[in-house]
Amino acid sequence: MRGVVMEAPGRVVVTDRPDPVIEEPTDAIIRVTAACVCGSDLWPYRGGWEVDHAPMGHEYIGEVVELGSEVTTLNVGDHVVGSFIASCNHCEICLAGYQSRCVRAVGMGGIGTQAEYARIPLAAGTLVPITDGAPEADLVPSLLTASDVLGTGWFAAEAAQVGPGKTVAVVGDGAVGLLGVLATSELGAERIVVFSRHERRQELARVFGATDVIATRGDEGVAELTDLLGGLGAHSVIEAVGNQVSMEQAIAACRPGGHVGFVGLNHGVALDGKQLFGSAVHLHGGPAPVRRMLPDLIERIQSGAIDPGLVFDHVVPLEQAAEGYRAMDERTAIKSLLTID
Amino acid sequence: MRGVVMEAPGRVVVTDRPDPVIEEPTDAIIRVTAACVCGSDLWPYRGGWEVDHAPMGHEYIGEVVELGSEVTTLNVGDHVVGSFIASCNHCEICLAGYQSRCVRAVGMGGIGTQAEYARIPLAAGTLVPITDGAPEADLVPSLLTASDVLGTGWFAAEAAQVGPGKTVAVVGDGAVGLLGVLATSELGAERIVVFSRHERRQELARVFGATDVIATRGDEGVAELTDLLGGLGAHSVIEAVGNQVSMEQAIAACRPGGHVGFVGLNHGVALDGKQLFGSAVHLHGGPAPVRRMLPDLIERIQSGAIDPGLVFDHVVPLEQAAEGYRAMDERTAIKSLLTID
Repeated sequence: MRGVVMEAPGRVVVTDRPDPVIEEPTDAIIRVTAACVCGSDLWPYRGGWEVDHAPMGHEYIGEVVELGSEVTTLNVGDHVVGSFIASCNHCEICLAGYQSRCVRAVGMGGIGTQAEYARIPLAAGTLVPITDGAPEADLVPSLLTASDVLGTGWFAAEAAQVGPGKTVAVVGDGAVGLLGVLATSELGAERIVVFSRHERRQELARVFGATDVIATRGDEGVAELTDLLGGLGAHSVIEAVGNQVSMEQAIAACRPGGHVGFVGLNHGVALDGKQLFGSAVHLHGGPAPVRRMLPDLIERIQSGAIDPGLVFDHVVPLEQAAEGYRAMDERTAIKSLLTID
Repeated sequence: MRGVVMEAPGRVVVTDRPDPVIEEPTDAIIRVTAACVCGSDLWPYRGGWEVDHAPMGHEYIGEVVELGSEVTTLNVGDHVVGSFIASCNHCEICLAGYQSRCVRAVGMGGIGTQAEYARIPLAAGTLVPITDGAPEADLVPSLLTASDVLGTGWFAAEAAQVGPGKTVAVVGDGAVGLLGVLATSELGAERIVVFSRHERRQELARVFGATDVIATRGDEGVAELTDLLGGLGAHSVIEAVGNQVSMEQAIAACRPGGHVGFVGLNHGVALDGKQLFGSAVHLHGGPAPVRRMLPDLIERIQSGAIDPGLVFDHVVPLEQAAEGYRAMDERTAIKSLLTID
């Protein structure tokens, strides 16, 4: 089959990879019908961490083509969406709603869903059938977002305890931040302030429900925010970047007793304990338990309540994956969808 | 009046200080009837930060002897307990329950309650009368703990969301950690594991409700804890130290989706964003909003439900405050009470 491999930082190729096979009786093989590039894929792409001929991709929607002997709750032919982390969905941690930290959790690292086929571990726990069989083509992008980026934005909003009567600030205008805006709006917040310096991203944020845009960042951005909110920080802050500046900004933007939901994959970040102590905020985040949210997100998409697929402003065939990466790296695209025949 | 002054790290004296006077119409002057030494006083004592002839003390119980013109809700002669941070108790942050981050908050730093008298700013918001007038002598130590150490332990337990059915680990066997155990027990948790290597502290922890003691710390302690709990970390972790090792241990001791309540005054701590992200815990803490909890804590003490005053295992007259500091520094005392004639 064809699949995306990152040979080295900045070097993405589409190449022949071995067809995946059932390795465990709990596996499924899916034909991937659409995949995409994640903001976190840019970390190794930019040399943020080591990468050596790694199969890429962890977001996916697809059709089941083969099942391990222990997978009894799915059928060949089912169209499915699954989380970017495979989980059993019945251990104590899964039952508590933290499936991405399942005691049996398997990442998609060695698997790579930017490919024609993928082996999905713990399939019964991980994959959620799309109720009406094969999805309509125009729903595919939105359903694909449920696999990670929408679920991650939604979890950030949850972790930040957004809701009616709350003021919400969003740090990060990438796809996760933008879908954090959408989630925040859906969950009833009326005042949603997004930090963004990019006109097109500002526009999409407003489509998703943002009420205010602040184009400055760091201390200056926080000062502008508190002015806007009458002198206090936001009740809820979504952090969707994961670097030192964004984490500090998110904590500083939150009022004492408020909630910061952080989902930007943290890399090279050292939080000052004294700042955190003094801030008196609630801090919660990590890898989003997308599996828990999938049924609800699929329903919202199929009912037309939300259209998260709007984050895909760049669509290329799988064979041109390198172009999808390049556009996101240069920030000419918010998020790249990879179509697969 | 006589009062404690820390001239330099490790150099505590009792000396003549000016009698406090009303400076703002919202002030009160109290005659301090008992004071004590806080674990946080050991930071400057040990040279953890600079100190130069600073009046010391921020915990207190006392009798109102003079009121500013705007204080209409208290009377001269009232016996009162107040928080270690003065707060207005009516701004948006106070009303949200975070009085120690009140927009008008005043610390006791320049005031120093280890003295015969103290000026309490924002007295109407800060001081809570003890219902039955002058407290019985045997209740004084417990009521004094409500001013900070009990309230701080209680807040840690709240922030860690302890409760029935939860497993709780407590990092730190100082007075705050021990009162965190008491709070946890009162709030209904059945399994309370305390990390401690000191026999006398272990004993008091058991008196307060601890069910298990672990004498190792760091990674080894966490491994012992997860063994004890069947392979997973605790649902709730109280952090009551505030250094690098204790913060890391607290986060590592908590299961994904669990809650860490941290109240140890953080100093020189840098939290690894990646560890925090991966842990998927909730982290909440900071200066405890003791004022919010005071009425409840006073009632529990007066009804005899709790006896937090047991943390005072060293009682000295104010004039011997240096001895009180020394004993806590050398860990021969858990907490030193300073009696004032």
